[in-house]
Amino acid sequence: MSKAKDLELRLERAEAQIRLYLSISRYLGKAVNLHDAFPAIVKLVADFTHADSCLLYLLSTDGELVLCAARSPNPAAIGDIRLRLDEGLTGWVARERRLLAVSREAFADPRFKCFSNLQEDTFEAFLSAPILVRNRVVGVLNLQHRHPHSHSGDEMEMITVVGQQIGALIALSLLDAKTLQFTDVAELVLGSRVGSQES
Amino acid sequence: MSKAKDLELRLERAEAQIRLYLSISRYLGKAVNLHDAFPAIVKLVADFTHADSCLLYLLSTDGELVLCAARSPNPAAIGDIRLRLDEGLTGWVARERRLLAVSREAFADPRFKCFSNLQEDTFEAFLSAPILVRNRVVGVLNLQHRHPHSHSGDEMEMITVVGQQIGALIALSLLDAKTLQFTDVAELVLGSRVGSQES
Repeated sequence: MSKAKDLELRLERAEAQIRLYLSISRYLGKAVNLHDAFPAIVKLVADFTHADSCLLYLLSTDGELVLCAARSPNPAAIGDIRLRLDEGLTGWVARERRLLAVSREAFADPRFKCFSNLQEDTFEAFLSAPILVRNRVVGVLNLQHRHPHSHSGDEMEMITVVGQQIGALIALSLLDAKTLQFTDVAELVLGSRVGSQES
Repeated sequence: MSKAKDLELRLERAEAQIRLYLSISRYLGKAVNLHDAFPAIVKLVADFTHADSCLLYLLSTDGELVLCAARSPNPAAIGDIRLRLDEGLTGWVARERRLLAVSREAFADPRFKCFSNLQEDTFEAFLSAPILVRNRVVGVLNLQHRHPHSHSGDEMEMITVVGQQIGALIALSLLDAKTLQFTDVAELVLGSRVGSQES
């Protein structure tokens, strides 16, 4: 490949990555509706990576990870697929709070869990990031390729950033309007309260 | 300039923009300390744009915009500079909730307000974005160049995104740990509660 052609492809990729971040970031400024935002975000992520599936699991109060948004061959499973934290690769990511990248034969991993109704269970490649809000795991974002796929550094960065943005969207949607109205935001940064907020 | 050289420069720029977003996004995943995060963020933004000053104003409960973080020739003004919403270009941005870009003679703008102790008052170029949390203005982020400067589309995009990230960081720091602990995050997305959360 010529140098110019190579540069062109890399620039195209970088610009696509920037557009992805801009699109997701736009939700942060608004009075966010997670019901609309999350299906749009999993679609953006799947399109950016040409993945065959992108699944967002979120934690319920009974300690299970529930499939809440999917860009998938089988979107009907939303709300039905539930995983305990000690189950599957997804549970492992939530428990370990770490990125996981498996480039081939994800289904052969001893941590894997099969759901008979998820076509993704036969997929080769698996990339997954925890979703944290204030250091607390609230979900997992998975990206799957049907065929073996070596994940690039860009893809690992991207899924990490998107996981952070999803966490921020959840925080925004949980923030009470009154709390915001009566908070001295300047004092929050300048004052000594910051320390106690973080404890 | 040769085509390859031009592509190289554009790629370098795009990669710098991605690194900026990654650096800021990293704060979103943590138990964020705004006291540390905001000075780091204004430095990152000033470095990315080669601006002479980057100032973050946040709203106090008495309705004033208070200078809370600065990458500036005069950082001593933090906490002291206060603006009403009807004062200056900064007040205009907060009131109008819109991006403002002035490429030259910002000090001659009729909306301008002079502080005798801010060297930035003599600067030519001014780029400013509102900081919104759930559609509520909580601050303004300003970027200033000493000499005339035509702001690129990238710079306008960037300051908008950084404003959104700062808003998300504020939301995260305000979120009560108990609220998070006792929320069914899955239900927040799947259930009908979403609608009422947004009202």
